[in-house]
Amino acid sequence: MSDGIIEGAHRVLKAPDGMRRAGVVGTGLIGGSIGLALRARGWHVSGTDADPVTAAKALALGALDRLGVDDEAELTFVATPVGAVPAAAKEALAASRGPVTDVGSVKGSILDTVTDPRFVGGHPMAGSEQVGVEGADGELFEGAVWVLTPTAATDDNAYATVRAVVSSLGAEVVALPPDRHDTLVAVVSHVPHLVAATLMHLADERAEEHRALLRLAAGGFRDMTRIAAGHPGIWPDICGENRAAISEMLHRVVLALVEMRQVVASDDRAGLLAVLERAQRARMNLPSRFQRPSALVEVRVPVPDRPGVLADVTTLATEIGANIVDLEIAHSSEGDRGVLILLVETDRAERFCNGLSARGYRPATHTLE
Amino acid sequence: MSDGIIEGAHRVLKAPDGMRRAGVVGTGLIGGSIGLALRARGWHVSGTDADPVTAAKALALGALDRLGVDDEAELTFVATPVGAVPAAAKEALAASRGPVTDVGSVKGSILDTVTDPRFVGGHPMAGSEQVGVEGADGELFEGAVWVLTPTAATDDNAYATVRAVVSSLGAEVVALPPDRHDTLVAVVSHVPHLVAATLMHLADERAEEHRALLRLAAGGFRDMTRIAAGHPGIWPDICGENRAAISEMLHRVVLALVEMRQVVASDDRAGLLAVLERAQRARMNLPSRFQRPSALVEVRVPVPDRPGVLADVTTLATEIGANIVDLEIAHSSEGDRGVLILLVETDRAERFCNGLSARGYRPATHTLE
Repeated sequence: MSDGIIEGAHRVLKAPDGMRRAGVVGTGLIGGSIGLALRARGWHVSGTDADPVTAAKALALGALDRLGVDDEAELTFVATPVGAVPAAAKEALAASRGPVTDVGSVKGSILDTVTDPRFVGGHPMAGSEQVGVEGADGELFEGAVWVLTPTAATDDNAYATVRAVVSSLGAEVVALPPDRHDTLVAVVSHVPHLVAATLMHLADERAEEHRALLRLAAGGFRDMTRIAAGHPGIWPDICGENRAAISEMLHRVVLALVEMRQVVASDDRAGLLAVLERAQRARMNLPSRFQRPSALVEVRVPVPDRPGVLADVTTLATEIGANIVDLEIAHSSEGDRGVLILLVETDRAERFCNGLSARGYRPATHTLE
Repeated sequence: MSDGIIEGAHRVLKAPDGMRRAGVVGTGLIGGSIGLALRARGWHVSGTDADPVTAAKALALGALDRLGVDDEAELTFVATPVGAVPAAAKEALAASRGPVTDVGSVKGSILDTVTDPRFVGGHPMAGSEQVGVEGADGELFEGAVWVLTPTAATDDNAYATVRAVVSSLGAEVVALPPDRHDTLVAVVSHVPHLVAATLMHLADERAEEHRALLRLAAGGFRDMTRIAAGHPGIWPDICGENRAAISEMLHRVVLALVEMRQVVASDDRAGLLAVLERAQRARMNLPSRFQRPSALVEVRVPVPDRPGVLADVTTLATEIGANIVDLEIAHSSEGDRGVLILLVETDRAERFCNGLSARGYRPATHTLE
């Protein structure tokens, strides 16, 4: 590691011949984990952080090959706090010709600001409770969902590259439009965090009056409030950027709890049981972490060679619940048309093809031997 | 086990000479765990259940020595669903001369109904998410908090017996007045359960519209909603019995979330950070599971030999945060006075003694060698 030479403008020396080259901007928990995961797969990784101590730690922990910006990076990950993403992404886009992706927890505001076709919004759903490069883990993304948010403006090749690399880290890629992503994470991440903090806060307030209270906190309460122990510093930015979706979901939670209170206060035991039974079923049906499906079918989709097609097709797959296990673009020699080759789970393939047909595509399926 | 002979009135044969004898009414998860824990400590345990299959399973799993009611039980645990406790407790009180305790999650309504001085309300804070004797575990109570709710009507010897046996199962006994218990479990157990179910319910509702939603549910959401997977059947009773405290706490949660929504909607980042930081501190300070303290002091309290003193002294200890590690009653030969001998943690002893003095007691401390 001691050969990491930093030049004046933080340009790095060339990677050894034949290595794929990536950049990481922001080398905290997520950026460091990306660095470790890429290096374990043979990549040469350059990185920077606004805090030089953090960058040096990432280098020492083996998450980077070198400090600095690699202007020949095939791909750059921006893993700064969400508020810093637009500026960092624009800088990374200017520094190299490769695609740039980010890991911010809110996507709409970022995609509104960063409109370069080479920028692909991303959000790995992993590790948000920890903080600091010391917690970096090259296997953090194994089996985790990694959302990508291609839009009509996104360059197909940039998207395909980001998608392939993220998949290679062991993550399940889920494609969603940016605003849809923001609505959904408000429901499953942002609002649960705020509710956990609220429950902890209220219990603590009452603990001043009732000293025994927190000693009664058993497993259920500990589970529910665990995320409230996470680093608070990241949340004001997240909540600021996603305040519309969070406000709407908090409003729904409040209405539901007012109704719940009415059910309890009126001793409506049948009504209460019905709500709890439905919640139990839903919790038990929560999808388990990603496992590669065994039965796959190849779907070929001739498409016009224009931006936005990949976003259209992959977000449709997400909408339908069809998981795209692999994706390739075969451009025709004439240049104006190409073929998308997708591997999808057999049991969702028909619905997926019907959806494609309804949108004017002409998909063909090929069973794999 | 095959010598378990049930007579007509479910009377059991005598235990082998010298064994302490206990009864368990309701042999599900908690009752079965109590049976296993007692038998591991050399007790002879008789048990019954409204469902004969459940009782037979408990016998087969080794949680009981015999099926039936032991009219010579030194102590009986009522571990039925909370709504069935009063009737079962009265029956157990009629069947033997020993103390009877229960494990119901709500105490006020039970103590209002069962006023016999030999009845000691109890609530082990463990295992509420599972159900069924198949999950019974003799080590379930190791390190768990077990609330006892002595009142002015409670017989001191009955309370001391229950306290000693529960402690011997590895639990930390916390004494609370019944109503105080109900308020506190509304905060740390009942309302968190209802909130978890509500979040799960809302996410599920939106998942119908947005199929990808539940695939985005990462660790935090899974932790928060885990308790919602618990058996719903026990909750209508619990919520019915504790509806005043639950309604009040739900009201506070709603007000706090309305305020939280205002903070988010107005993009008040400093205000949000302050709430989240306080919640984080509180979560990190959540007491860890009980560990026997190393530095102890003996506190001797001369007391009038009348009911209610033990309740008064032990709930005061809880109020002050002083953990009573051991407790003994030495009755004087004159009969109208006695001495309570308590082992408490050194660092809380002074506050405890000041509290006792303020209530008119005359405590004396003795440092242990």
